[in-house]
Amino acid sequence: MEKVKPRTLTGFMELLPGEQIEFDRFTDVLKQSYIKYGFYPLDTPVLESSAVLLAKAGGETEKQIYRFKKGDTDLTMRFDLTVPLAKYAALHYNELNFPFKRYQIGKVYRGERAQKGRFREFYQADIDIIGDGELSIVHDAEIPAVIYDIFSTLGIGGFKIRINNRKLLSGFFELQSLSERIDDVLRTVDKLDKIGRDGVMRELGEIGVSDEAAADIIAFVNTEGTSDERLAAAEKYAGKNETFDKGLEELKTVVGYVRLFGVPDDNFTVDFAIARGLDYYTGTVYETVITEHPEFGSVCSGGRYDNLAEFYTDKKLPGVGISIGVTRLFSVLKETGFFDFEKASPVDALIIPMTQNMGYCISVMKTLREKGVRVQTYFEDKKLKKKMTYANRINAPYAVIIGDDEIAAGKVALKNLDTGEQTVCTAVEAAAIITE
Amino acid sequence: MEKVKPRTLTGFMELLPGEQIEFDRFTDVLKQSYIKYGFYPLDTPVLESSAVLLAKAGGETEKQIYRFKKGDTDLTMRFDLTVPLAKYAALHYNELNFPFKRYQIGKVYRGERAQKGRFREFYQADIDIIGDGELSIVHDAEIPAVIYDIFSTLGIGGFKIRINNRKLLSGFFELQSLSERIDDVLRTVDKLDKIGRDGVMRELGEIGVSDEAAADIIAFVNTEGTSDERLAAAEKYAGKNETFDKGLEELKTVVGYVRLFGVPDDNFTVDFAIARGLDYYTGTVYETVITEHPEFGSVCSGGRYDNLAEFYTDKKLPGVGISIGVTRLFSVLKETGFFDFEKASPVDALIIPMTQNMGYCISVMKTLREKGVRVQTYFEDKKLKKKMTYANRINAPYAVIIGDDEIAAGKVALKNLDTGEQTVCTAVEAAAIITE
Repeated sequence: MEKVKPRTLTGFMELLPGEQIEFDRFTDVLKQSYIKYGFYPLDTPVLESSAVLLAKAGGETEKQIYRFKKGDTDLTMRFDLTVPLAKYAALHYNELNFPFKRYQIGKVYRGERAQKGRFREFYQADIDIIGDGELSIVHDAEIPAVIYDIFSTLGIGGFKIRINNRKLLSGFFELQSLSERIDDVLRTVDKLDKIGRDGVMRELGEIGVSDEAAADIIAFVNTEGTSDERLAAAEKYAGKNETFDKGLEELKTVVGYVRLFGVPDDNFTVDFAIARGLDYYTGTVYETVITEHPEFGSVCSGGRYDNLAEFYTDKKLPGVGISIGVTRLFSVLKETGFFDFEKASPVDALIIPMTQNMGYCISVMKTLREKGVRVQTYFEDKKLKKKMTYANRINAPYAVIIGDDEIAAGKVALKNLDTGEQTVCTAVEAAAIITE
Repeated sequence: MEKVKPRTLTGFMELLPGEQIEFDRFTDVLKQSYIKYGFYPLDTPVLESSAVLLAKAGGETEKQIYRFKKGDTDLTMRFDLTVPLAKYAALHYNELNFPFKRYQIGKVYRGERAQKGRFREFYQADIDIIGDGELSIVHDAEIPAVIYDIFSTLGIGGFKIRINNRKLLSGFFELQSLSERIDDVLRTVDKLDKIGRDGVMRELGEIGVSDEAAADIIAFVNTEGTSDERLAAAEKYAGKNETFDKGLEELKTVVGYVRLFGVPDDNFTVDFAIARGLDYYTGTVYETVITEHPEFGSVCSGGRYDNLAEFYTDKKLPGVGISIGVTRLFSVLKETGFFDFEKASPVDALIIPMTQNMGYCISVMKTLREKGVRVQTYFEDKKLKKKMTYANRINAPYAVIIGDDEIAAGKVALKNLDTGEQTVCTAVEAAAIITE
């Protein structure tokens, strides 16, 4: 038979079994945190009507999407989890209870040019809290608490949640008589990390900002010090612009609550340089950087928005949320050697029969499973060496070796494959040792 | 602003929040069982190259698929989890350890004509055990053990796993001198449940089977009695056809091991009518019916195949597996009223502040979460009645009411929303009561 060469498309992550165990453990940390904080699960279709999914989309989005026709139906694969949430909230408005808190962990699709670290299919893990007409600012402070919980549990070392407020930035630009160009200025300031002070100065000049105003802006967004020192520095501009004052007030409130939620000052900071330039945020904004890997950029970003679903409904649905790009985060951490795939095993123990009496092996397996041990039996008729190699290759921590002697004694030989230590004991005793 | 009417495509299941909690609980039962039995997780892309995904596909599949071009790339959305597994096993052959046991729970896509109970996007939950060159028949008996475990845990009442062997059927048809038409006969026999005895007689006649042979076939596949009685009835045909004898031997072996795995005779039966007509199975075949709902048809089917990846590789990779159509099963069970969505809540408790002191509420929330309680706080500034309505609408089992009196006493008022009972206690005591 003529064979088709098997391959996986570029930009589509497909993991080896041990890697997949770690990936699942990773996403499970996110899921369990989201659940603990009272978020509903949500699962929306990967495919939606193009008219619905692209109601808001601009040119950049259009280019990157997977869009096609099936019969007469114009379909698009979702490119984020926010637009489907907006559709969902508008469509099911009467059946939802607000504040509506939901998490969604799912694949999204972007037909970007293939390059290292860029994926065309990737998981996003989002949470959003949606209000009906209004939404308490305390929610803005709970979001960093969730981020803190997740990144602490993942154990990826130091991290810092950078918090700012878009009103404060907009107000500051208004003070510089730049109210006409706030979006352009925001977008430019957002590039500070990427193109540096000089780059931002030059680009601000190009969009007509005077050197003096540009220097002021850069000095402000680069304000150094503790969160409290930065807030104090901002106070100097207070009382001159309503938007600025509102933003500063919100930011102070959020910082106060973030501390009450137990997020240590080591793990968050006020940072006036955070703009989330291209996004639709209107208040609090967040970015999260891993201390040892600033080169990853922000691994968890989000913010507050005034109106989630304005393209679908007249209802005003303000919200606050974040998104973690799980596939990218996993992929970059993998490159740093963060994961120990050698420890990833589908089993806690592998039963190795050295007998034809599979019935006894099966009864031992049943006992172990009832005690919560993940276990399988190597049923194939192979030499012991081959069976042990298999146990090592799947990283089984224990081998449960069963020969006719063990059967006669009603026992098993339990071998710790790490230390090589071997003991003869009952299946129940083996379960206790394995699950210890 | 002009609004786009929000809608979800026909044939794409989108659940309300409470329903989604139950759906997730449902799939989690499957996942935890699969993990306990030592299956690796696997996650393959939803999109694959059409040349790869359609290597084997016939006309029916081609019509039902979502296939499109992005630039020059011809893409297809996966229509099952078996073809991606075949690709994966062939592509990563050198990095896998055989037997390779994997589970995959994921969405698949079929552009079928929209009708009740038919989905265009739906979850499949598959397990397969793949051998390299050969695979012990004991695995064929472990599959029903997994099914038994899952359906017992789901608590959907009585169910029966029907087990047969394709070699036994094929051999029987050869005995009827129908070796040229085995596939057609299998396909027809498979319709017994749907079109009845007379329908099968007529269709067998149409494909040229004599009335006598047809009557023999129907009598054989309708053999009644216990599994042992049915096996004994089959013995009568033994010794005349090698394929039949091999199939009978395999079936007896499987039945023996299935019992050793602890599956009660109440939950499985030998059934010569099971053919899995359109599938590629070559040995053991399974179907599972829910006793109270035979109208659902088989909710979990599968079997043994000789060669998983023959379209991609010369390696012979025999396997055995099953697939559960999760979306359909959930959907039909939902219609029977099986789920109690009124009990589905995103929280174990809702904190209701009757104070402006949110700091105290947040510290109580922290304590509860540390004790494993899923909790959120109603931060919005609303009347108590509105807050209690919210608690009831999200089905919160408990309300933790905090006013200035409670704060002064360092306590909370814990209200059981089911009984109405209210007690004043510390946050730690509340956690103990809630998690009880």
